[in-house]
Amino acid sequence: MGRLLEAAHLAPSVGLMQPWRFLWIADRAKREQVRALFERANRDAAGPYDDERADSYTALKLEDLLDCAINLCVLCDTRSTQGHGLGRRTRPETMQYSCVAAVQNLWLTARAEGVGVGWVSILDPTALAELLELPAGVEPVAYLCLGFEESFGDEPELQVKRWERRAPLEEHVFWERFEG
Amino acid sequence: MGRLLEAAHLAPSVGLMQPWRFLWIADRAKREQVRALFERANRDAAGPYDDERADSYTALKLEDLLDCAINLCVLCDTRSTQGHGLGRRTRPETMQYSCVAAVQNLWLTARAEGVGVGWVSILDPTALAELLELPAGVEPVAYLCLGFEESFGDEPELQVKRWERRAPLEEHVFWERFEG
Repeated sequence: MGRLLEAAHLAPSVGLMQPWRFLWIADRAKREQVRALFERANRDAAGPYDDERADSYTALKLEDLLDCAINLCVLCDTRSTQGHGLGRRTRPETMQYSCVAAVQNLWLTARAEGVGVGWVSILDPTALAELLELPAGVEPVAYLCLGFEESFGDEPELQVKRWERRAPLEEHVFWERFEG
Repeated sequence: MGRLLEAAHLAPSVGLMQPWRFLWIADRAKREQVRALFERANRDAAGPYDDERADSYTALKLEDLLDCAINLCVLCDTRSTQGHGLGRRTRPETMQYSCVAAVQNLWLTARAEGVGVGWVSILDPTALAELLELPAGVEPVAYLCLGFEESFGDEPELQVKRWERRAPLEEHVFWERFEG
């Protein structure tokens, strides 16, 4: 998994801040606690859907926290003075964005190495930070499940399961003026 | 530039929401207006540095809005119902994060195609949204300068200019428990 972090660490960052911190979690007990957070958040998330959507929702695989090889939490250390504040005055969220760029580098490298990655966003970030005993100012940006995969599908799983379809690119491109 | 958007559009997104919208800006007058926003924000950003840092700051190339081939603003359409809200209840910011993943895909593809990309974060997002006449709920996530480059350096420019150095990866990796 070292090559994945090497790729992540090469991501661009605001002011060369490199605010990402990589926390590997293999411990079963900790993963069960994270799973409990997921279950709580997922019950709340499933609530508002109408019957048909709710059935579709519960059929989706939205986490693999316990059965995957390992968990990785990508943290943002907003306390860091690296980068000397460059570019963050007008857009402080570029700290977190830099961490997302690192995740995307990791994700692409993982795919090339035969490693599947799932991003679990159905977790309350405050509860997760408490569980991981993070100091104030260190935020969980992404909670990832990683494991070797025999094969990868050609289509996004959410399209295969008819949750949502890929949109045509043309509908997302505008010239000189946004219309929509 | 079409291949860049194709790569961006293949990024993963929360609930397959694909919230990114790509707004190309070639118009000189519009770019000059964006440049004026940069200059205003940049004066404010340079203010707090001490003398030595301030000299170093003003020597940095932080935008190329007018001279580059084209500008690209990557927008997030938070109004979109694509994805049916999946994964966004606990982490609404994953909409913007999905747009960042698209930017990173674009950035890597650009590098492979010989296109340089600079992300200008020294812009007030509210003023930029007004200038671009964006409807409420459509947010500028990234404002990019793009152009063909003769060559690319091996080191990040901010390291070459001694603003910040690349950190050793080991300092960013933790096992089971974050310490720092």
